[in-house]
Amino acid sequence: SETIRATLFPGDGIGPEISESVKQVFSAAGVPIEWEEHFVGDKVDPRTESFLTWESLESVRRNGVGLKGPMATPIGKGHRSLNLTLRKELGLYANVRPCTSLSGYKTRYDDVNLVTIRENTEGEYSGLEHQVVRGVVESLKIITRQASLRVAEYAFHYAKTNGRQRVSAIHKANIMRKTDGLFLKCCREVAEKYPEITYEEVIIDNCCMMLVKNPTLFDVLVMPNLYGDIISDLSAGLIGGLGLTPSCNIGEGGIALAEAVHGSAPDIAGKNLANPTALLLSSVMMLRHLKLNDKADQIQNAILSTIAEGKHRTVDLGGNSSKTDFTKAVCDHL
Amino acid sequence: SETIRATLFPGDGIGPEISESVKQVFSAAGVPIEWEEHFVGDKVDPRTESFLTWESLESVRRNGVGLKGPMATPIGKGHRSLNLTLRKELGLYANVRPCTSLSGYKTRYDDVNLVTIRENTEGEYSGLEHQVVRGVVESLKIITRQASLRVAEYAFHYAKTNGRQRVSAIHKANIMRKTDGLFLKCCREVAEKYPEITYEEVIIDNCCMMLVKNPTLFDVLVMPNLYGDIISDLSAGLIGGLGLTPSCNIGEGGIALAEAVHGSAPDIAGKNLANPTALLLSSVMMLRHLKLNDKADQIQNAILSTIAEGKHRTVDLGGNSSKTDFTKAVCDHL
Ligand SMILES: CC(C)[C@H](C(=O)O)[C@@H](O)C(=O)O
Ligand SMILES: CC(C)[C@H](C(=O)O)[C@@H](O)C(=O)O
Repeated sequence: SETIRATLFPGDGIGPEISESVKQVFSAAGVPIEWEEHFVGDKVDPRTESFLTWESLESVRRNGVGLKGPMATPIGKGHRSLNLTLRKELGLYANVRPCTSLSGYKTRYDDVNLVTIRENTEGEYSGLEHQVVRGVVESLKIITRQASLRVAEYAFHYAKTNGRQRVSAIHKANIMRKTDGLFLKCCREVAEKYPEITYEEVIIDNCCMMLVKNPTLFDVLVMPNLYGDIISDLSAGLIGGLGLTPSCNIGEGGIALAEAVHGSAPDIAGKNLANPTALLLSSVMMLRHLKLNDKADQIQNAILSTIAEGKHRTVDLGGNSSKTDFTKAVCDHL
Repeated sequence: SETIRATLFPGDGIGPEISESVKQVFSAAGVPIEWEEHFVGDKVDPRTESFLTWESLESVRRNGVGLKGPMATPIGKGHRSLNLTLRKELGLYANVRPCTSLSGYKTRYDDVNLVTIRENTEGEYSGLEHQVVRGVVESLKIITRQASLRVAEYAFHYAKTNGRQRVSAIHKANIMRKTDGLFLKCCREVAEKYPEITYEEVIIDNCCMMLVKNPTLFDVLVMPNLYGDIISDLSAGLIGGLGLTPSCNIGEGGIALAEAVHGSAPDIAGKNLANPTALLLSSVMMLRHLKLNDKADQIQNAILSTIAEGKHRTVDLGGNSSKTDFTKAVCDHL
């Protein structure tokens, strides 16, 4: 089998360590991937207006797939947030976050098994804000038919190809009749084309209440940007937090950038204490995108078995295993 | 002691039944309140542009206090939402929702004891929306210094006078730098005046994750309108849902309109099955606003004891008591 090139952004803080784990697991599993590694630069690249280098973006565009660790945007003016720049420059329009209870890590909730699909380019993240008069400011939330249809299409396609039964569109169209109204209208149009998938609409406040009362009521959720930001983190919390949940961003032209969405945890960086689970599970999403499903299954099973066994638990989960121990255990399970 | 006049909006669906429970409990406890009852009209009142009558709003303004059951806005054009009209016309700027675990009704969470304070007049609820071009719509989120200071003042004052230690301002100022930024700036200004209260800022996505992982981390939360809508419902979900949580709206000139925020449940209306708990606990908030603290304590204890005992549980909580049984049990506990 041929070698596939993929871009790797190890990122900051614990990023390089957990990326190391992915490389080790991939080579133990014999995944035919060659990484093109790109670090965040130490000065603003005028072509990206951020610390991301133009070359690193070109690498993702060329390869079509990538994996990204946590990035901490340096504080200061004259540059853009790294995460937002990536979303914008690569047209990453859907953020997909499966959230499944892990046997071996008990929380208050069993049997959570849902996927949030977040519109990732517009809505409340337009960046359009201004002061109207002193003491009065406004932000614009922008919803377009194009971006709404695109993410709705992705959500229904995802549901269908992943054996899911239902898509819930999350909104506040009783208040934002025009913006969230347009989002729902687009979801309904797409729903028509997928008669085999049940479609429903749930108001965001009620959705959050239902999620904490009974998350098994949900399957695939699709929503505008900010609601997705909120509900994906809430859902991650149900099964243990961002250290355990993978994500993948889908972009224009079929780009897929898998990403661990937790922070860079500078306090424990370099101490061999980080939990590589979220990045490992994200790398599995990347493999599925590449249709390397056998490798994806093998690695996913190895990760889940290691966690289920509970012998190698990193400090964030109340254990005392090092990152290296945990990674070795995953490799041993392959 | 003199009789105090208060406005009562029994509301729709189960509203009149649960209002009946409040009246019964108040007379059993000897609360010196005389109700001015106002129903939602059957045609639009041009002076309120809604089905609310001008007289009913005048009644609240005159009395300064009121209690409100669920109202279902009739579908159709040419009139405004009942709830939003009340907020606007009465200047109800803060929605206060205490959320405390009930012994006797077990959920996944113990020891929840927090209060959400929601800015209730602006933000994402401005109603300002328009189509920019075909397929592109926008909504305006408006944040003002005046409304932010007002709700922040209320939150800190509430914390201080209710023996609370901490106020958390919930925001997304990393994205909405200007609007949520102004909200935070106002909270910081007010925080300066309350050195005895700990002040912190929590990003909304992280807040939701923390709430589902460990809600005991929070005490008083203050936030813009939509975040308040979301987080207050999420918090209610932690302890069992909107049927168990009271709320009170604070308005201009010291008006207080206590309110059960659950729906009007038309399916069970008139069947003597409704749970009056949220409205009863809301009426207790009204009594505290009137400084009738002894009566408030008596009634609150009677409600909590009835629930703790678990002998009289309405159907929504998995029991088979009627509304009348439950209400009688509360009266017996007085
Ligand atoms: C860091 C922040 C800009 C980002 C967001 O709000 O999208 C984060 O919360 C996320 O979900 O990736
Ligand atoms: C019915 C709706 C307009 C309302 C809101 O969004 O404020 C409700 O959710 C609430 O919290 O009172």
